[in-house]
Amino acid sequence: MTSNLDPAIAARLKRSPDGLVPAIAQQYDTGEVLMLGWMDDEALHRTLTTGRCTYWSRSRQQYWVKGDTSGHVQHVKSVALDCDADTVLVKVDQVGAACHTGARTCFDGDVLPLGK
Amino acid sequence: MTSNLDPAIAARLKRSPDGLVPAIAQQYDTGEVLMLGWMDDEALHRTLTTGRCTYWSRSRQQYWVKGDTSGHVQHVKSVALDCDADTVLVKVDQVGAACHTGARTCFDGDVLPLGK
Repeated sequence: MTSNLDPAIAARLKRSPDGLVPAIAQQYDTGEVLMLGWMDDEALHRTLTTGRCTYWSRSRQQYWVKGDTSGHVQHVKSVALDCDADTVLVKVDQVGAACHTGARTCFDGDVLPLGK
Repeated sequence: MTSNLDPAIAARLKRSPDGLVPAIAQQYDTGEVLMLGWMDDEALHRTLTTGRCTYWSRSRQQYWVKGDTSGHVQHVKSVALDCDADTVLVKVDQVGAACHTGARTCFDGDVLPLGK
């Protein structure tokens, strides 16, 4: 896949065998972890340059600009790589619900029991 | 890999082709995203039952109880699956630095420039 990502960033990005990195979306002011999506180089480039969080949909095998169909846009505030350059943290301003279920975050509904 | 994970959880967990799910570690009170690691079923089981966040190290191909060598333990406060059951969010109380570089989080050092 041809990408317009800055070659200096592309050179140090460490991708999984399918060419993707996990991208954590976090609400910039409250700190809520909203969801985890996947980005290839071009999705990261678009996220950095358009102001809108853009993922690669593994199920649909296409780019996915968050909110294009739902209206639940993620306005990008900052983007950081982790120390191994194999994970992206995107701080966003989330419009409405991050989750397709209508929940604010994708982690609201399935808390697992702790202990034996 | 044999696992002691609750079969009801294992039945709905959606793993990547290498049998892992990404696990986001978040500081439970401040909301900081500390790091992203990987868990197989057994690492998730141990995280749920021991009170200590446990990952599968892809580079070393072994279980990794966070803090066992560094002392930078992650005490588990809660564990949740996302809406697709393919990502884990672990809220922890992080002792000291989460990052092997000594930084508080793995996302402190490499903020990418936004815009064209």
